[in-house]
Amino acid sequence: MNQVIELIQADVKKPKPKASELGFGKYFTDHMFVLDYEKEKGWHSPRIAPYQPLTLDPSALVFHYGQSVFEGLKAYRTEDGRVLLFRPEKNVQRLNNTCKRMCIPPLDEELVLEGLQQLIEIEKDWVPDQEGTSLYIRPFIIATEPYLGVRPSNSYKFLIILSPVGAYYAGQLSPVKIYVENDYVRAIKGGVGHVKTSGNYAASLLAQKKAEELGYDQVLWLDGRERKYVEEVGSMNIFFKINGEVFTPKLNGSILSGITRDSVIELLKDWGVTVREERIAIEDIYTAYTKGELEEVFGTGTAAVISPVGELNWNNHKMIVNNFETGEFSLKLYHAITNIQYGKAHDKFGWTVEIK
Amino acid sequence: MNQVIELIQADVKKPKPKASELGFGKYFTDHMFVLDYEKEKGWHSPRIAPYQPLTLDPSALVFHYGQSVFEGLKAYRTEDGRVLLFRPEKNVQRLNNTCKRMCIPPLDEELVLEGLQQLIEIEKDWVPDQEGTSLYIRPFIIATEPYLGVRPSNSYKFLIILSPVGAYYAGQLSPVKIYVENDYVRAIKGGVGHVKTSGNYAASLLAQKKAEELGYDQVLWLDGRERKYVEEVGSMNIFFKINGEVFTPKLNGSILSGITRDSVIELLKDWGVTVREERIAIEDIYTAYTKGELEEVFGTGTAAVISPVGELNWNNHKMIVNNFETGEFSLKLYHAITNIQYGKAHDKFGWTVEIK
Ligand SMILES: Cc1ncc(COP(=O)(O)O)c(C=O)c1O
Ligand SMILES: Cc1ncc(COP(=O)(O)O)c(C=O)c1O
Repeated sequence: MNQVIELIQADVKKPKPKASELGFGKYFTDHMFVLDYEKEKGWHSPRIAPYQPLTLDPSALVFHYGQSVFEGLKAYRTEDGRVLLFRPEKNVQRLNNTCKRMCIPPLDEELVLEGLQQLIEIEKDWVPDQEGTSLYIRPFIIATEPYLGVRPSNSYKFLIILSPVGAYYAGQLSPVKIYVENDYVRAIKGGVGHVKTSGNYAASLLAQKKAEELGYDQVLWLDGRERKYVEEVGSMNIFFKINGEVFTPKLNGSILSGITRDSVIELLKDWGVTVREERIAIEDIYTAYTKGELEEVFGTGTAAVISPVGELNWNNHKMIVNNFETGEFSLKLYHAITNIQYGKAHDKFGWTVEIK
Repeated sequence: MNQVIELIQADVKKPKPKASELGFGKYFTDHMFVLDYEKEKGWHSPRIAPYQPLTLDPSALVFHYGQSVFEGLKAYRTEDGRVLLFRPEKNVQRLNNTCKRMCIPPLDEELVLEGLQQLIEIEKDWVPDQEGTSLYIRPFIIATEPYLGVRPSNSYKFLIILSPVGAYYAGQLSPVKIYVENDYVRAIKGGVGHVKTSGNYAASLLAQKKAEELGYDQVLWLDGRERKYVEEVGSMNIFFKINGEVFTPKLNGSILSGITRDSVIELLKDWGVTVREERIAIEDIYTAYTKGELEEVFGTGTAAVISPVGELNWNNHKMIVNNFETGEFSLKLYHAITNIQYGKAHDKFGWTVEIK
């Protein structure tokens, strides 16, 4: 990193929404971080600029061929007023990994981390302080070249925008109902399911809609090849506790390598729990259920941290997990991670980064 | 259709590029057709407006979750100066089909066809008249709501932009070299490969790059499940002539239902040729090749109409087709279709629509 980040202050500052009004992804702060790419110049002109609309030609490649990628992480306010990031270098690495698959030139990871930190420093007052709230951070890249041929763009924009978000849980962790999807497929090995590119999410909308119409909160995807093996939930990885051991699908080339997933695995191992990253047949989950051995199911992701699963519906086999109550591991993991994120517990893994 | 299309004339008209400079998708005309959608109002405010940049919030859903879809067709200049469209109603139907899969509210097909025709009427002078040139038409929809949650957008923009394009072939049809891709996958049944959504194209870039690095023009995709069955080429469907019969992959839920494909099938049938829409194993193509029965291979799509294939490389088995020369059917189909498109032959199928 040897580029200087320019700062262009916003003239007018927006009023900050009340904690009770936050919700998710509706409000945006006063500034954003921007980097431009042109083929001849590489990534250039790092700057923090007023949050403002983007002006793009109608033929900009992003609108037509979906060359866009993103990340999602959060900044947390501690009780003594500091601001912490959780493993941000992992997100930046994953972003570059995604870029590679999507033919987007890689970013200088150090510069992005520096830009991210400077941006949050400037927007520090936007990090809410009510229990469970946070500042959601959305880095993303879009292809900007005005051209209609199918090929990688010659110009891109990288942005980081920030949105204060409300607590995911009102009080206790509330279990969700999950529909195991048999027809629609999210991704397949050889495709792009293991990276964070926009098209994966558009492709998931119809199945999510179907699940909601059937009274479920989210979809659990099965593998695209045989519809036999468990993949992941909408924006979460999935874990099963069976007979005291914990199972999660291994990174097989079609699921996202979640940072919460990684943290959960590290924590469980640290606690002496066996974690098996394997290919998991949904049939085996059902068998464990019928034998009374399916003790807990939970999703992991930046948004909810841990999302206990109360019901799994697979082919109309309804599996009620742990009496539709939050399990012991779900709760313990949730507190362990959020206590580190909010600076309430000792960060023995060195996961947090404090904003100066 | 009961909405009036408003016309807002451009103040300044751009100079028109020379036929020799056209290329593909680089120049855009003076006007575009626009429709807006809001949840409360439906699709509204149809208008022809000056071609101009779009202004979108950085959080607009299209940038993050890829909810965008498109179509591609052309307007052709006849020798006596008229302008013809080729089966435009098929593109509008396919667009609505794509919308359904991608959770985008359907369009009024009549209104879109009317808007398309009025737009081209106004831009008539932009339809080039040199042999093989045409006016490329790009209808597309983007999700515009500023929001970071993963769900269908509550607002969209539909646009039609126009780009004069050069002749695909300089003179004769030139055969292409095709790399049969074994690792990367484009689509799978249950996914979105059968519709024209942006993410499919972003997902294809890396394999295309690999093929080019290996000295090939384009990729032939195999099925995502077993990598055994032929699917389609980058932006083309594929046909094989074996022992006098013509084979093409059936519409299996992961390939696009090409309008050129459909026209080719209708023409061949009209000529008394047997066309088999089947599941086609690449192994069987190779067997036919070794027996000397693989007589012709060609791609079909709006851009090239017919693209003869001179070489297929499957696992380093190089199949040289028809001596790397354009085959009889390729040539005959190319002329039959382009003669209808350019008004040189009687349109017995009623495929063309003349712009008033
Ligand atoms: C498809 C998908 N899987 C899993 C996750 C969980 O990843 P993380 O724990 O890094 O938030 C996300 C969210 O980022 C996701 O979009
Ligand atoms: C993936 C794909 N397959 C096939 C085609 C050919 O379709 P059409 O003949 O309608 O142009 C296209 C181009 O539109 C395409 O993008």
